[in-house]
Amino acid sequence: MNRTATDTDVPASIDLNADLGEGLGVWPMGDDEAMLQVVATANIACGAHAGDPSTMRRACAGAARNDVAITAHVAYPDLLGFGRRFLDIAPGELTDRVIAQVGALRAIAAAEGTRVRGVKPHGALYNALAHHEVQAAAVLTALIELGIEGPLPLVAAPGAVVARLAADAGIPVVLEAFTDRAYTPDGTLVPRSVQGSVLTDPDQVVAQALSITREHRVRTLDGTWIPIRAGSLCLHGDTPGAVALAQRVRAALEAADVQVKAVL
Amino acid sequence: MNRTATDTDVPASIDLNADLGEGLGVWPMGDDEAMLQVVATANIACGAHAGDPSTMRRACAGAARNDVAITAHVAYPDLLGFGRRFLDIAPGELTDRVIAQVGALRAIAAAEGTRVRGVKPHGALYNALAHHEVQAAAVLTALIELGIEGPLPLVAAPGAVVARLAADAGIPVVLEAFTDRAYTPDGTLVPRSVQGSVLTDPDQVVAQALSITREHRVRTLDGTWIPIRAGSLCLHGDTPGAVALAQRVRAALEAADVQVKAVL
Amino acid sequence: MNRTATDTDVPASIDLNADLGEGLGVWPMGDDEAMLQVVATANIACGAHAGDPSTMRRACAGAARNDVAITAHVAYPDLLGFGRRFLDIAPGELTDRVIAQVGALRAIAAAEGTRVRGVKPHGALYNALAHHEVQAAAVLTALIELGIEGPLPLVAAPGAVVARLAADAGIPVVLEAFTDRAYTPDGTLVPRSVQGSVLTDPDQVVAQALSITREHRVRTLDGTWIPIRAGSLCLHGDTPGAVALAQRVRAALEAADVQVKAVL
Amino acid sequence: MNRTATDTDVPASIDLNADLGEGLGVWPMGDDEAMLQVVATANIACGAHAGDPSTMRRACAGAARNDVAITAHVAYPDLLGFGRRFLDIAPGELTDRVIAQVGALRAIAAAEGTRVRGVKPHGALYNALAHHEVQAAAVLTALIELGIEGPLPLVAAPGAVVARLAADAGIPVVLEAFTDRAYTPDGTLVPRSVQGSVLTDPDQVVAQALSITREHRVRTLDGTWIPIRAGSLCLHGDTPGAVALAQRVRAALEAADVQVKAVL
Repeated sequence: MNRTATDTDVPASIDLNADLGEGLGVWPMGDDEAMLQVVATANIACGAHAGDPSTMRRACAGAARNDVAITAHVAYPDLLGFGRRFLDIAPGELTDRVIAQVGALRAIAAAEGTRVRGVKPHGALYNALAHHEVQAAAVLTALIELGIEGPLPLVAAPGAVVARLAADAGIPVVLEAFTDRAYTPDGTLVPRSVQGSVLTDPDQVVAQALSITREHRVRTLDGTWIPIRAGSLCLHGDTPGAVALAQRVRAALEAADVQVKAVL
Repeated sequence: MNRTATDTDVPASIDLNADLGEGLGVWPMGDDEAMLQVVATANIACGAHAGDPSTMRRACAGAARNDVAITAHVAYPDLLGFGRRFLDIAPGELTDRVIAQVGALRAIAAAEGTRVRGVKPHGALYNALAHHEVQAAAVLTALIELGIEGPLPLVAAPGAVVARLAADAGIPVVLEAFTDRAYTPDGTLVPRSVQGSVLTDPDQVVAQALSITREHRVRTLDGTWIPIRAGSLCLHGDTPGAVALAQRVRAALEAADVQVKAVL
Repeated sequence: MNRTATDTDVPASIDLNADLGEGLGVWPMGDDEAMLQVVATANIACGAHAGDPSTMRRACAGAARNDVAITAHVAYPDLLGFGRRFLDIAPGELTDRVIAQVGALRAIAAAEGTRVRGVKPHGALYNALAHHEVQAAAVLTALIELGIEGPLPLVAAPGAVVARLAADAGIPVVLEAFTDRAYTPDGTLVPRSVQGSVLTDPDQVVAQALSITREHRVRTLDGTWIPIRAGSLCLHGDTPGAVALAQRVRAALEAADVQVKAVL
Repeated sequence: MNRTATDTDVPASIDLNADLGEGLGVWPMGDDEAMLQVVATANIACGAHAGDPSTMRRACAGAARNDVAITAHVAYPDLLGFGRRFLDIAPGELTDRVIAQVGALRAIAAAEGTRVRGVKPHGALYNALAHHEVQAAAVLTALIELGIEGPLPLVAAPGAVVARLAADAGIPVVLEAFTDRAYTPDGTLVPRSVQGSVLTDPDQVVAQALSITREHRVRTLDGTWIPIRAGSLCLHGDTPGAVALAQRVRAALEAADVQVKAVL
């Protein structure tokens, strides 16, 4: 492999984000406390796919206590499907729902002395925004209407339609990459149904985190390398093994002199 | 009746408020457009007893267009009971739910270029706050935590425990009276189950609006007069007859040189 | 047009069905009492797109009182969208939801001394079942599992994938036609977005009801005639004009010696 | 203590019941598989306080596979409160909601080749039925209206108003006792807020299970013995320690020649 001068191009920092506050009422999910020690940004569920006001508040309090930045993890209104299935929602309603979800989280975050710095769509909505122009535009309208001093920033996948439209509209975008998912040569994630789509070897996960962060490239499932630019790495914490893996990724980044800090 | 010098004590103005935005999805309720011509303040449902983000937005847009002030009509989470039945909710959860409801409405109101000026509890919550100290304190905590430059003001019934506790805590309170409900000698509303509790004679309703506003007193069901101080009159608009009656009340107030304007 | 001997082929009877019980909590919809005088079969909402247990019960009581047959109007779980938007629900969950919805209605119908005779999918689910083989199979699994003495019958559109699969599986199917919607030459409904898709001229609606019922054919939007076989005609009752129109259709059928009666 | 001839009065059998199927969507609760090895009757959540159709189905399938009887665990409609807070619901609506919940579970149980044998109210509803005559009567109306060959049986606490009213109405009642809760001298449970209300010493729990089952009496918190008649013992399984304790209770009963079997 022909190495370019990537070592001189080491980023000063990378963001690490995870989805937190995904319990509902009496039902918990994941180990938020452990993940708050690892990440720099928490994507907090807003009651649409998970979360209720008190769950949201506990997550905001934890983020504030650990000096972790908050993004609103907005979703289709579908608690029983955990926001994981496409909903053919009208764009106007989607805009209004995103505004209401972020507004609720903003008020709760303020009660805990912190604030919402951006929006990350969840699950099926995240996937839809990779290609669905109408829903993407609806979400961007919400970000503009939610703006206080300029639009609220968006977290999105590189190559997603919503990322392109956001850039066109002057909305700040944080591109995120995944450390434990395989990429295709065109820069999209290999679907979960394909063998090898999820990386389970910790060494491989750490290597991918380092190559994305320090070399701005990722090795695809077929072995080729492609360039990738990401300001944030998404970590998963909803299984015990995932927490340990997330901790290892952070330790490896810090050992490589990469500063972990919130980008928003 | 021994008239005191009430005529020299005519208020410069009174607020007229009504509950709006109480549809849900495809199901409408009331004639919001007509009521927006009559009232100075709209209490907008926040998705707990009625309302969804798009219904909330239409109500906010209507209020903005008609220069009508907005309060958040917060409620127990009980869409199918329309918030009309007592829920023995834990105080911490009640606080968080009020914050989330108001936060959602604030963001939607901002998207329509307007803002939320106060909070009016709805239905069974309104009734509970007349006597339930724990739930009253929980709502007041929310008003403090929602505060930007000081606590968010409360709309409450005269004599309610929540009004007293709010005053003690330095939270602004707007006392409201009803033009179409009979009062008991101790200043509370005659329960709906009692004959004569709801005034249906338009002349009587107008007379009560005028006596409360200009003379600061109301004639009770047993015929005695009691003093009452109210900064706002609550009007109902969820039947066609109610809209016409509301219009007549406003016309009568204006004919008596009472200025109708929002108090918050 | 070359008339065939349709007059000798007059059906002994046709079913007339309408969607009832589509209120929710305090929010009413339509004039169920009027429609129960017109139809022979009521499709009663089961709590997924509309309806709650007490609304379901009032609808069942009305059907029992008027000797109107009942089908379960099953839907995607989406109250706020009124079941009108596609949901990419997993087939196993769809099966289970249909079973639960029908089970709830069955118990309520039994409490009113009547019973559920079949299943009619609603809204976006109805539309999806015209082509979505996986969801169609999921609904048919529910009909088989709900069977007491054989599968529960299905109401479906002629030409729908679900109708074909049901026939293949030995599940009884009632085909229904619409009196107030224009048809395409291939026998499907003209989409609502197309001009002329909804028939508003009462004479035209009545004529279509008669041609479908007595001549087993319908005049398409482009003027050609196509054959259509339907055991039931769907009437709408959610506007005042629709009720009057439904009454006129029934009167015209009876005047033409067509017996209106439930087919299930 | 003056022993009566209880040893000659050893029951042939006792029922052991537990609350199962209390997950929701992606959120699990408890170890249903382990508890199905211990109990003879499973109280399955019906979607009101927990459970969705697919969760209900998995619980029914597990019960069928393990030859465990099923009761419907009906509740106030309050997923986010887990049915643990009093709701001042109108009696007619309560009746209809119980019918709908049981109807849904019946259809799902039938799809798994089993059936619902009775009804056990959950949480705050269970507690309310100890004294709230109007809500008790509403639930009993549902049991009568759900009846196929006679009313559906009820599981209730000894001394509860609903148990007395059920007996008066000829509705079969299974009285249940708790092995891990302390009793007051008047036969009610010591409130959880009181120290010593929950038994945590396994030996004490086992001893209470044996004394209730074999001697028809229980030692109260103040040390006196009171008579108690119970056809079923309620076990908890929502913590790992609880499962082991439940297993120990069953083993102790079997070692004492008490047959564990469903009473309905």
